[in-house]
Amino acid sequence: MNQPPQQNHDAGPIDVVIMAAGKGTRMKSRLPKVLHRLGGRALLAHVAGTAARIGARDVVVVTGHGAAEVEASMAGGIGNATVRFARQEPQLGTGHAVQQAAPLLADDGTVVVLSGDVPLIGEETLRALVAASAGGKLALLTIVFDDPTGYGRVIRSGSTGDVQAVVEHKDATEAQRAVREIYSGVMAVPARLLKGWLGRLDNDNAQGEYYLTDVVKLAAADGVPVVAHITTDALQVAGINSPAQLAALERAWQLRQANALMEQGVRLADPARFDLRGTLECAADVEIDVNCVFEGAVSLGEGVRIGANCVIANARIEAGAVIHPFTHIEGEKAGVSVGAGSLIGPFARLRPGAQLGAEVHIGNFVEVKNSTLAAGAKANHLAYLGDATVGERVNYGAGSITANYDGANKHRTVIGDDVHVGSNCVLVAPVTIGAGGTIGGGSTINKSTEPGALTVARSKAVSFPNWKRPQKKPKA
Amino acid sequence: MNQPPQQNHDAGPIDVVIMAAGKGTRMKSRLPKVLHRLGGRALLAHVAGTAARIGARDVVVVTGHGAAEVEASMAGGIGNATVRFARQEPQLGTGHAVQQAAPLLADDGTVVVLSGDVPLIGEETLRALVAASAGGKLALLTIVFDDPTGYGRVIRSGSTGDVQAVVEHKDATEAQRAVREIYSGVMAVPARLLKGWLGRLDNDNAQGEYYLTDVVKLAAADGVPVVAHITTDALQVAGINSPAQLAALERAWQLRQANALMEQGVRLADPARFDLRGTLECAADVEIDVNCVFEGAVSLGEGVRIGANCVIANARIEAGAVIHPFTHIEGEKAGVSVGAGSLIGPFARLRPGAQLGAEVHIGNFVEVKNSTLAAGAKANHLAYLGDATVGERVNYGAGSITANYDGANKHRTVIGDDVHVGSNCVLVAPVTIGAGGTIGGGSTINKSTEPGALTVARSKAVSFPNWKRPQKKPKA
Amino acid sequence: MNQPPQQNHDAGPIDVVIMAAGKGTRMKSRLPKVLHRLGGRALLAHVAGTAARIGARDVVVVTGHGAAEVEASMAGGIGNATVRFARQEPQLGTGHAVQQAAPLLADDGTVVVLSGDVPLIGEETLRALVAASAGGKLALLTIVFDDPTGYGRVIRSGSTGDVQAVVEHKDATEAQRAVREIYSGVMAVPARLLKGWLGRLDNDNAQGEYYLTDVVKLAAADGVPVVAHITTDALQVAGINSPAQLAALERAWQLRQANALMEQGVRLADPARFDLRGTLECAADVEIDVNCVFEGAVSLGEGVRIGANCVIANARIEAGAVIHPFTHIEGEKAGVSVGAGSLIGPFARLRPGAQLGAEVHIGNFVEVKNSTLAAGAKANHLAYLGDATVGERVNYGAGSITANYDGANKHRTVIGDDVHVGSNCVLVAPVTIGAGGTIGGGSTINKSTEPGALTVARSKAVSFPNWKRPQKKPKA
Repeated sequence: MNQPPQQNHDAGPIDVVIMAAGKGTRMKSRLPKVLHRLGGRALLAHVAGTAARIGARDVVVVTGHGAAEVEASMAGGIGNATVRFARQEPQLGTGHAVQQAAPLLADDGTVVVLSGDVPLIGEETLRALVAASAGGKLALLTIVFDDPTGYGRVIRSGSTGDVQAVVEHKDATEAQRAVREIYSGVMAVPARLLKGWLGRLDNDNAQGEYYLTDVVKLAAADGVPVVAHITTDALQVAGINSPAQLAALERAWQLRQANALMEQGVRLADPARFDLRGTLECAADVEIDVNCVFEGAVSLGEGVRIGANCVIANARIEAGAVIHPFTHIEGEKAGVSVGAGSLIGPFARLRPGAQLGAEVHIGNFVEVKNSTLAAGAKANHLAYLGDATVGERVNYGAGSITANYDGANKHRTVIGDDVHVGSNCVLVAPVTIGAGGTIGGGSTINKSTEPGALTVARSKAVSFPNWKRPQKKPKA
Repeated sequence: MNQPPQQNHDAGPIDVVIMAAGKGTRMKSRLPKVLHRLGGRALLAHVAGTAARIGARDVVVVTGHGAAEVEASMAGGIGNATVRFARQEPQLGTGHAVQQAAPLLADDGTVVVLSGDVPLIGEETLRALVAASAGGKLALLTIVFDDPTGYGRVIRSGSTGDVQAVVEHKDATEAQRAVREIYSGVMAVPARLLKGWLGRLDNDNAQGEYYLTDVVKLAAADGVPVVAHITTDALQVAGINSPAQLAALERAWQLRQANALMEQGVRLADPARFDLRGTLECAADVEIDVNCVFEGAVSLGEGVRIGANCVIANARIEAGAVIHPFTHIEGEKAGVSVGAGSLIGPFARLRPGAQLGAEVHIGNFVEVKNSTLAAGAKANHLAYLGDATVGERVNYGAGSITANYDGANKHRTVIGDDVHVGSNCVLVAPVTIGAGGTIGGGSTINKSTEPGALTVARSKAVSFPNWKRPQKKPKA
Repeated sequence: MNQPPQQNHDAGPIDVVIMAAGKGTRMKSRLPKVLHRLGGRALLAHVAGTAARIGARDVVVVTGHGAAEVEASMAGGIGNATVRFARQEPQLGTGHAVQQAAPLLADDGTVVVLSGDVPLIGEETLRALVAASAGGKLALLTIVFDDPTGYGRVIRSGSTGDVQAVVEHKDATEAQRAVREIYSGVMAVPARLLKGWLGRLDNDNAQGEYYLTDVVKLAAADGVPVVAHITTDALQVAGINSPAQLAALERAWQLRQANALMEQGVRLADPARFDLRGTLECAADVEIDVNCVFEGAVSLGEGVRIGANCVIANARIEAGAVIHPFTHIEGEKAGVSVGAGSLIGPFARLRPGAQLGAEVHIGNFVEVKNSTLAAGAKANHLAYLGDATVGERVNYGAGSITANYDGANKHRTVIGDDVHVGSNCVLVAPVTIGAGGTIGGGSTINKSTEPGALTVARSKAVSFPNWKRPQKKPKA
């Protein structure tokens, strides 16, 4: 056999339908429900990512409420899949949703039906489900809940145990409601079978809706085998209907991510106070203190230590660097890099384009933006470096500022190797401080200086003896 | 019927006794127990607030330990109620406490007995309890605990189920201790009945105290019906005796508040890391990241986003504003306002009287106090604005300071529209920078400047070529 | 009887073997397992500290993986004990480990066997265990687990209940695996008995290792009584094998510390968001807000309040001081002291050698290092004080800097009592500002000034009317 990797060996090409038309009334938000974020990504993006990872050929996203916004959110595509949208207006049930998608589905594939508000469905689970559907079967993903209230019950034959139907909670008898195995909303089924059944759905039920779950009865009637693939992982089938559910799933997801990192050897001071909204790559012996937040793509080299209460986005931090508490790093597309052995913070802020070499020190109340600092450069106290190129071993004094903005345009400041900039200086860009130069404290420098020179712009101090201070005025 | 709204339709005027005399030995604090705070308010203030909300006519606070301090804490009154204090010295039991209050209670009301250390008793619960007492009954608030150890057990008739007595744990038989329904300490009863019983209490029991719970026996003896109103909400009857109990109730209360906000549509990144000590009004689509603390009265407009680790007190933040992580806003009476679309932080501090218009940017390490910033003004880096009036679109440079204090008095700085203040400037108040003016970086300005002018106070730079830096001295 | 206090009255001198040779593969770390930290201290240091507290005479640490590093970590000794190391290479089981230690153990003592990766074993538990071994018995510390999977089962006689053996999980029968009482890894036994048994261990078992637990069988065979001392405190016997276990034990330990502090009267806003890595001494009425971290030795005086999100190491904070949110205090050996009634933060950083008198105010974005501030001194905004001696009631202006470093050496700044330093000043050390003097805003001062004088180093402002600002350049 020599099939392309995105195809399931038994079940042919995989096509995915993602139901994403719901309003999410209980979210009480103007944002369409599937665009709410979990772990920093839209719910729908999680589902789409999983569709991509199982090698989906075609993906049909069924949209309705906020359709334009939902469709726009998919502009980046879904892996190598062809993405199409089917509008469902009005929304007449899950069966109706898939009916809208049906014309866009090829006949030769296996269709996987996913929900845009069930974000953590797993790749391996879907592969197993697709495999279970192979050979012309309907495969349902089910789970056993202690409290199945509200969910569609999986009704099995008393004698054979075969799945005969899924009955929605509102339509279920008391006996059926006692069943604790429920349908997750996820199924895999050959497209030909699905399309046939979709045309035969009716809405003769408690909610007057076209239920996708009625295909189970039709399959049973047609003698098509129905397989229940039971998962034990409730997170994978958890759906989002309210901010409270979103928050609960967020915490569960964060804990799962924390555990995965700890499995790799990352040492977290408190897994319950760890947030990762993106990807975090860690080398050996990384330590992360309490209450840190990571966003975007962050990598931490061997032995990196992150202090308490740091917020770090889109950054590459090399081996041995120490990020002290209360450090805020926010790389965007430009990213931030911190060289090996650097010491950052506390109360430091590294903004997009901060590129720090090895052994750089950025101390408290220092902001660095769109600047390159070569190895060994230091800015330890209350300073701003913006649009600057800073040489090796530069010592940039407390309170010093690169005046990079003239009110209209931004300009660059170049500080040569081994320069010593005193305290409370202003370097008015564009300006170059020659290598090895020294700038006296309190100087405003708007012309470039020669290498090795001491440059001072400073007024002579004048003293007035026995000066009488202003007196506190009586309140009127 | 045309009764005033604060009266219960069936039970006449409501008068409240709040027991607040206890020492709280296990708190190990100099503060009287009822003045410890939950959600930022004294325990007693919670109870008093609930008394006000049920329309109490008279409130008698029974004080003892720290009486002066407790009484002073009630200086603001309790709704429209008449507030009186009864001293209980020494403390001889709960019955003794209410005995001290009795002379201050009118005969025509329904008395509700509350505990100053049971802060979360609910308004609806009390209304239901009062209603249950209507028609001349004694109504007890009870609850069923898995572990009732230490609590007074509700003893019912084996045949009728009628409440016959409440027996304190220390006086209970083994059989009685097996009862899991306990008395919460809260009752409602017609004043005439209560007063009659109070005179008949004795202290013939394990603790040698006058138990208020003995009125149950007296009621049963008098043929007065005793009604148990069972609550299922343990928080409402939770009492505080130790810092650990206080912390546990604080967390439970915070989670309840978090859930209430999420019900309204507020998106909390972690409900377990959210603290509200006051009131928080949120419009639609508000997002609050982890580990934020809100105090006093805060309102957040539509779409406002609050970053991680913010502490915000007494502030009004308008629609679309983004508060970045590590922002500290502390309005006091003056309050802080942040205009629509403003960007604040990270590491910003807004102090009392900071009034920011629309689209204002306050960046890292910037402090604003008692200052007005008009629309579009920006202070993005390491700056102080105190006692300043800042015009529209002003750009206030990095490191610049309003020197508002001459060592004796504070003065105002006025910065006109469209002014550009360079870096590391000092504006020595009182001073006005005319509209459209520019102040060169590093300038100290102590005289007002004309509109449109460029003003610079700067020394000429002098360079000394080939300057030899100080050498590191050998350690002695 | 007149024995030295470090000896157990019945069991003679106590000698301790600490097993610390394991690699800790699942930690996925280059650090030897026993050097991983819990509550800020190495696991082994916890165990060694407990050995010291029970008055150990000799301690033998069995090392193997990372032996040099582990041995170096013990350089500070263990109480008054004689510390020796026994290398175990290769590692052939727990019995083999103790065999290596045996030659270093005297014959007259009671040997307590501890594990370097079971950090929270308690002093009282060990004392009880040693007492249980008195009179020539083998005493095992055991515990009953709901899920004993993986642990050595304690096998008792069906008739007498006597302990007959400890069977490792991998060697246990199904019936034995049903036993829920497990051996903790901790035993106390007379040295003479232990040494005899060690020579008779074999490795004829599932893992091919020499099990220390086989001494139980040998004791039973020799007719030596085996006593099981059952603990109910799972934390004391919890071992660390992975980052997840380390994090879980860290949280449990932190909660235990939090509870102990609350028992003393400390008020914690959230016990689940409290970290103490060292010692914290608190006087009455201390309040600690959410998400604070304490390290090293910290003491808080009466009524001290610590705001949210503070990180405080090695500091002494006197009565009534208020530490506002986001304050970072990091004393090292020099320590930091904060005087009574001082107000610190928010966003303040006190570094080693910061010594603040009473009623000192350190405000936002202010850094203090190796400086003494006398009573009533204030530095409220964006400032740096390094290597400074600051007099009483000094007002140190916003943005002002002590330029303490000339690029080679550090120098001191002395500011006399009642000095007023304006905004954005630079004090170039070494320099002295005479008492009562005033420094005008924006001045750079590099010569000492006379007491009472006003000193200003400032250029005259020059204005250019109708100045035309730079225009925004079109992007190329």
